Amino acid sequence: MSINTFGHLFRVTTWGESHGPALGATVDGCPPNVPLSAEALQHWLDKRRPGVNKNTTQRQEADAVRILSGVFNGMTTGTPIQLMIENTDQRSRDYGDIAHTFRPGHADITYHLKYGNRDYRGGGRSSARETAARVAAGGIARAALDHLAPGLEIKGYMVAMGEMTLDRSRFDRDAIDRNDFWLPDATSAPEWEAYLQKLRKNHDSVGAMIEVTARGAPAGLGAPVYGKLDTDLAAAMMSINAVKGVEIGEGMAAAGLTGTANADEIFMGEDGPEFSSNHSGGILGGISTGQEIVVRFAVKPTSSILTPRRSIRTDGTATEVITKGRHDPCVGIRAVPVGEAMMACVLLDHLLLHRGQIGENQGHIGP
Amino acid sequence: MSINTFGHLFRVTTWGESHGPALGATVDGCPPNVPLSAEALQHWLDKRRPGVNKNTTQRQEADAVRILSGVFNGMTTGTPIQLMIENTDQRSRDYGDIAHTFRPGHADITYHLKYGNRDYRGGGRSSARETAARVAAGGIARAALDHLAPGLEIKGYMVAMGEMTLDRSRFDRDAIDRNDFWLPDATSAPEWEAYLQKLRKNHDSVGAMIEVTARGAPAGLGAPVYGKLDTDLAAAMMSINAVKGVEIGEGMAAAGLTGTANADEIFMGEDGPEFSSNHSGGILGGISTGQEIVVRFAVKPTSSILTPRRSIRTDGTATEVITKGRHDPCVGIRAVPVGEAMMACVLLDHLLLHRGQIGENQGHIGP
Amino acid sequence: MSINTFGHLFRVTTWGESHGPALGATVDGCPPNVPLSAEALQHWLDKRRPGVNKNTTQRQEADAVRILSGVFNGMTTGTPIQLMIENTDQRSRDYGDIAHTFRPGHADITYHLKYGNRDYRGGGRSSARETAARVAAGGIARAALDHLAPGLEIKGYMVAMGEMTLDRSRFDRDAIDRNDFWLPDATSAPEWEAYLQKLRKNHDSVGAMIEVTARGAPAGLGAPVYGKLDTDLAAAMMSINAVKGVEIGEGMAAAGLTGTANADEIFMGEDGPEFSSNHSGGILGGISTGQEIVVRFAVKPTSSILTPRRSIRTDGTATEVITKGRHDPCVGIRAVPVGEAMMACVLLDHLLLHRGQIGENQGHIGP
Amino acid sequence: MSINTFGHLFRVTTWGESHGPALGATVDGCPPNVPLSAEALQHWLDKRRPGVNKNTTQRQEADAVRILSGVFNGMTTGTPIQLMIENTDQRSRDYGDIAHTFRPGHADITYHLKYGNRDYRGGGRSSARETAARVAAGGIARAALDHLAPGLEIKGYMVAMGEMTLDRSRFDRDAIDRNDFWLPDATSAPEWEAYLQKLRKNHDSVGAMIEVTARGAPAGLGAPVYGKLDTDLAAAMMSINAVKGVEIGEGMAAAGLTGTANADEIFMGEDGPEFSSNHSGGILGGISTGQEIVVRFAVKPTSSILTPRRSIRTDGTATEVITKGRHDPCVGIRAVPVGEAMMACVLLDHLLLHRGQIGENQGHIGP
Repeated sequence: MSINTFGHLFRVTTWGESHGPALGATVDGCPPNVPLSAEALQHWLDKRRPGVNKNTTQRQEADAVRILSGVFNGMTTGTPIQLMIENTDQRSRDYGDIAHTFRPGHADITYHLKYGNRDYRGGGRSSARETAARVAAGGIARAALDHLAPGLEIKGYMVAMGEMTLDRSRFDRDAIDRNDFWLPDATSAPEWEAYLQKLRKNHDSVGAMIEVTARGAPAGLGAPVYGKLDTDLAAAMMSINAVKGVEIGEGMAAAGLTGTANADEIFMGEDGPEFSSNHSGGILGGISTGQEIVVRFAVKPTSSILTPRRSIRTDGTATEVITKGRHDPCVGIRAVPVGEAMMACVLLDHLLLHRGQIGENQGHIGP
Repeated sequence: MSINTFGHLFRVTTWGESHGPALGATVDGCPPNVPLSAEALQHWLDKRRPGVNKNTTQRQEADAVRILSGVFNGMTTGTPIQLMIENTDQRSRDYGDIAHTFRPGHADITYHLKYGNRDYRGGGRSSARETAARVAAGGIARAALDHLAPGLEIKGYMVAMGEMTLDRSRFDRDAIDRNDFWLPDATSAPEWEAYLQKLRKNHDSVGAMIEVTARGAPAGLGAPVYGKLDTDLAAAMMSINAVKGVEIGEGMAAAGLTGTANADEIFMGEDGPEFSSNHSGGILGGISTGQEIVVRFAVKPTSSILTPRRSIRTDGTATEVITKGRHDPCVGIRAVPVGEAMMACVLLDHLLLHRGQIGENQGHIGP
Repeated sequence: MSINTFGHLFRVTTWGESHGPALGATVDGCPPNVPLSAEALQHWLDKRRPGVNKNTTQRQEADAVRILSGVFNGMTTGTPIQLMIENTDQRSRDYGDIAHTFRPGHADITYHLKYGNRDYRGGGRSSARETAARVAAGGIARAALDHLAPGLEIKGYMVAMGEMTLDRSRFDRDAIDRNDFWLPDATSAPEWEAYLQKLRKNHDSVGAMIEVTARGAPAGLGAPVYGKLDTDLAAAMMSINAVKGVEIGEGMAAAGLTGTANADEIFMGEDGPEFSSNHSGGILGGISTGQEIVVRFAVKPTSSILTPRRSIRTDGTATEVITKGRHDPCVGIRAVPVGEAMMACVLLDHLLLHRGQIGENQGHIGP
Repeated sequence: MSINTFGHLFRVTTWGESHGPALGATVDGCPPNVPLSAEALQHWLDKRRPGVNKNTTQRQEADAVRILSGVFNGMTTGTPIQLMIENTDQRSRDYGDIAHTFRPGHADITYHLKYGNRDYRGGGRSSARETAARVAAGGIARAALDHLAPGLEIKGYMVAMGEMTLDRSRFDRDAIDRNDFWLPDATSAPEWEAYLQKLRKNHDSVGAMIEVTARGAPAGLGAPVYGKLDTDLAAAMMSINAVKGVEIGEGMAAAGLTGTANADEIFMGEDGPEFSSNHSGGILGGISTGQEIVVRFAVKPTSSILTPRRSIRTDGTATEVITKGRHDPCVGIRAVPVGEAMMACVLLDHLLLHRGQIGENQGHIGP
């Protein structure tokens, strides 16, 4: 794991700025003989593509991904897979006026201080556009998981956006793909939309909380201590731009629970151990239990807003900043497929790690 | 970064089980010529040592650390530093009856499934005892930071424990070291203690939330994307046993904020940029701003409780588990110095990374 | 360091097959504010480009490199630099007949056994074409070294090719760039050429030995044990396709020396320590002495020859193989700029590592 | 792979100085359920132990290894294994006079320049004593290989020492363990001994060349480019102190061969492909062929000699150095078990890597 790379055996390095010629991902360590095509990856990219609905940025990017290496005759070869997405609708003129101004809440000031050099046309590396590369890489992970863990199903959705929060009593998994908010409650989606459009008209933006789940993940993934599955999932989600918090299972709420309330009691089911509850989020001691894996992360409100905020210029003089351009009023919406992609990458990586060190699970439960 | 190792340049590998002969940390990449002694490390270990007050486990461990390598004539040499803490009060007979039983909420079942082999005397690698090695390693990081970032001050404290939550209007930094809960509000400590002792008498335990802060950290630490300072802090904290959530600055609450509320406006101060607020927790785009760095993490309630919980044995038969032994009613208390240690390790690592890639910060702000 | 990546802080991942759409390198960890252009990289690529003289393959590749990220306004930004070289003259029809046949001396059979899938159009990942990406990455390293170690001069040349060996008494550094063999003895070049052309007409090929040197490298680069500068140089050179041996200073010949003969005695010069000889190749205990760093590596003869060799097909039946196509009779010639590039990458990486851990050299010699 | 660590999945970090309290290895990533005891590791350590015969150093070290973690009830648990060897016969007074003098050929001067601090009692990290930790770690790798690759046999031996070179026509594998030189030609051992003792009496030392082989290694280990099995073997051997050259198969001699001579022709044998020769050293394109893997490395002559050599002190003044103490006249002898250990570690690591990415070999040869 290094600065722009994640993963142990299935390693993803993303590269590229929002307004350079292209961006992409270098994916090393994929198993061979996984059927893979640009079309299959495009399916996932289209889920996060901007310009699709009025609740996301109106930037029109084709986000067409090309596979430059590592696939031959429609199958992975086991060598590095290079994914490239060309930037086609950059309109970098929108950004000329911020070359010497630091937008509050943005990485402008920290990049300037650290590097003394930044691609000020948009967010550079900290742009939400970087996540397109992750989604494409996640598509590769999903294709490999289809072979290695056939029953695995990864699903992300929104659970909160500003004042709106999901009423879990109305949770409807089938609704998720049928509204613009990936909301598991189709009946509430219009209310969320009205709320968001009002914020947008007020030149404001809003944060969001996303939950990503994996059903059918085998028990035994992860490891103690620094290889905890929780650790890698936390790092994966926190590495997404604008994410400021990550939790597993009960998460932060675990601080308020007692040990009797938090214990997931264990029973013997027909196919192995079962649990009375899932406070652990499917992970005990860093290792998956076989239950549903549950991760949540919070995305801060889009920092690019039309409401003026006080700031300074590189020469230290004071100014006010209004961030024009085409920005998501809630960048969290597009973080849903990104979170799914990160879950896919982490699970595949841990499947490979587990197979490498151990082969098959070692412990039997039963007579 | 691998399974039992964290850090890029300042790399810490912990090893050892709670009831084996010893545990410790292998620390590679420390700068040379840092004054270091076992006594200095002991200072930090004593902060997390069990048996010190009645709110933590009564296990009596000397937790005496030995430096086996990498230090010569009281100074680090730049070669690997091996730290060893011998286990002296193991009483492993306490654990004999759980050799074939899975304690709910513990890693017993997942270790069994994954490895088919576990050191069932206590928690093995998932025991809170593993954190002693981190605290010792953190002591090395602090000694190095004293040279490299002289003004840096790392401070952790509890902000919640079950129903108890810190009243921030009474925040008193000086109180932290003067009560058993590392609580920045000495007047409330007796109430917290009464609450905890009542839980303990009820054979229960409770979770906690810890906040760890760093003042005086230089701007420019961190990097975009996967090297985000947020990412490494999240991974560091989440890797601590029993931690289930991590957040930076506003954290999970950012999901509920608007962009106008969340923006930290920027001013020019006498010594450089200043901010009107610190919703970002001192990190923008993954890179430190120079403000206070603020991380919180949640520790789940101790799973070892005297209240019976239903479970199964390795042969699949049903049983009830009461976890005897000497356990913390709130393991979160001892997580405070652990969180501080992880903060120290991550900041030193990023200081070295920054110096490696860039040398000095590059960007000037001002006329 | 992983399968397709080398370097600790300056990390290069190469990707791409010889006959896919493109190949390239993902370069992470480059310092910011290094002047960089595609033209500057092209200069180094042109040195290894095929088709330039009759002693190398007649494949005509433009080998035009594009910089897709990490450079803005002509300067590196400190973020990942993506280099892409499109394959334009692939003629993959030349390779159709070897889809199911294993060429002796090639990786065909091992790729087949391992992956069950290979891009049989040329050598895939094991093609000499992969080294173009290294040369481009090495160009970035050189640009960064120009800033960090201004006096450093990297120079590679051939010292042997089959029966031809360099007469060191006629060593002429200035001659290296003036003949097709990078031979530091211009007067012998015609003899080498006659020898090689005769081999080629006989449908044969030949091996080569290359020496790569670095003058002006600062003392103090490297580290003990696994971070030995020797180790990373050996790995860097051995990772080049067709390389089967690497040595530093006396190298393999050290086995035949006595301790008295091998000792480089030390004197105090005007600017610091000087040595009576350089048996060590500029590296003691894994750390550079400040003397010239000297590495040699052997490249095996090109396995693609027109002389028939016995082999088998994927179905196990016997066959004879004649490798048509356009191949270098001595692939070692083009390995010279590749070796230089690897030296540049390793030295930059160790400069950054050294700066990260230590800052400046710590030890003074003198009154 | 970092400064004091090698391996991808089976990761070994060595620590400790020759005259500190202890040295050892932290071994992470070992498969669980491998039978392991200190006694089994001791067997390998005793092979390289000093003081056993008059051709090696007379330092008397018990070299008793303790297992501090990662093994429970005689089986590995899959968690980090800590190995500790206490230094018992240090006699550091022997070294007091070299605290401020640089011994020619030693790392004294480079450590001083780099770190400004060194454990001058003996070689510190660059002492041959560090290799004891590798041999112990190699013992773990061998135990794991016994399960994963039952037919694998690793064997090292000397092929040259100064003027003495092995006559391969008299190669006798059974002789290796029956003489002090690990020489596969028992009849020549007395001549080697006479040669070495004469050198020692002349206050001199001598270099050596070691060959390490692995029979029965499965085909398919390794990977293209930087994960070439050759690369990791080269790095592993070159990382041993005093090693200055490494070669695979024909090695450096490949520079002198033609393509027709170097081609290992392929036949179909009863159990799969066979080769007419093994110029490749069992590795093609970085991946094992199933043939014997053959690596050679050169160890330079011991730099610690009683013949005076000119040098300088830390204050820059001139001096002469005679290195007293108890030193091997040919440190290469003890490098034989070290080379075997490194081979074991690299092969296990690549077996795990292969299993992780691919599971089983994918390609079939035959009808």
